[in-house]
Amino acid sequence: MKDHVDFWANGFGMRVRIALRELGVAFDYVEEDLRMGERSDLVRRMNPVHRSVPIFIHRGRPVCGSLNILDYIDEVWSAPGETRRLLPGDPAGRADARFWADFIDHKVFATQTRFLKSKGGEKHVAKEELVEQLKRLEEVLGDKEHFSGDEFGFLDMVLIPFSSMFRGYEQHGGFDLEVECPKLMRWVKRCKERESVRAVLPDETKMYELHKEWYGIE
Amino acid sequence: MKDHVDFWANGFGMRVRIALRELGVAFDYVEEDLRMGERSDLVRRMNPVHRSVPIFIHRGRPVCGSLNILDYIDEVWSAPGETRRLLPGDPAGRADARFWADFIDHKVFATQTRFLKSKGGEKHVAKEELVEQLKRLEEVLGDKEHFSGDEFGFLDMVLIPFSSMFRGYEQHGGFDLEVECPKLMRWVKRCKERESVRAVLPDETKMYELHKEWYGIE
Repeated sequence: MKDHVDFWANGFGMRVRIALRELGVAFDYVEEDLRMGERSDLVRRMNPVHRSVPIFIHRGRPVCGSLNILDYIDEVWSAPGETRRLLPGDPAGRADARFWADFIDHKVFATQTRFLKSKGGEKHVAKEELVEQLKRLEEVLGDKEHFSGDEFGFLDMVLIPFSSMFRGYEQHGGFDLEVECPKLMRWVKRCKERESVRAVLPDETKMYELHKEWYGIE
Repeated sequence: MKDHVDFWANGFGMRVRIALRELGVAFDYVEEDLRMGERSDLVRRMNPVHRSVPIFIHRGRPVCGSLNILDYIDEVWSAPGETRRLLPGDPAGRADARFWADFIDHKVFATQTRFLKSKGGEKHVAKEELVEQLKRLEEVLGDKEHFSGDEFGFLDMVLIPFSSMFRGYEQHGGFDLEVECPKLMRWVKRCKERESVRAVLPDETKMYELHKEWYGIE
């Protein structure tokens, strides 16, 4: 039995849903409405430390934290001795992928939050930083089809959920990502051709509306 | 060729030095004095994104971030098909270990910084939180000899460098960790019986003196 506890607009949770679809692992989806002040009993019991989602519950045991879950499902649903299916096959490639995943989680996400929360000069500074970070990721992509190389892989599924806020970034900051990061935007289009991504990524207008409500954006 | 770029008082770097000693991997140590305002050319070149240490350089390629490095050296210096030597052997055990490593890096470290930086009521709140987090880790340890079970392993080497600031915590906060977390303190003593830990952990007085200078503690 595999339960995946998540919220439809949670970018971290989207990664896991995409990964499970990519690996063909069936699961029961449990929605946790993060707009409610209180967490459910299930979340409080399964993730008492952070009371956050996503939580992936396998054989009654919770695995918490999206990168941790991706690692876990990659290990469990790869045959023994088989090359990893989500993460790169070699230690140096895995270290690089983990480095950039950490950059996305701790730099890009923090900058996105500051950008959406702030106004005036502070908002302008955060916008510049966010665009700079996206350009840096575009450099990492380079001329490859995907971050993982020819195939859609770990780092692609780590970053692609952020793209559901790209229209929101543009509206909030008054800029055009097609101009700033054209290669990255072509990568987004390629990813959206995949069934797993299309099935999971929410409507961009709905996403921005939710964030407007969350951060009190007028 | 393996170079390890680090600063003597960097708790994240200490993890890597302990792990390399545990695995018997020879390396050249390169000291980066973090008290200097400017980073060296080597650090700027090898970790342009964060300009931080530790950096482990193997065959000319940098691996950045202590948990990332532990993963890397565990993968590279374990024979193919062999059980991991630092991380637990099973995916669920690895997921647990990674969860708590993340807790230490993003909760305990942030609370330590707030505690050392603040004064008065704020310092008191941070102290209470820090003790609560250490008690939580003590619960994770339970009655085991080590966090990893019978053997000193990944989570032990992730946490043990923090113990070099425990005397500093006590002096700064006016409390006794032997009273608050007796089991955790016995675990510290057990870890210090290991050659790898003794060789790497710095003098506790020197550590607190450095932090006093850093955070302007009187």
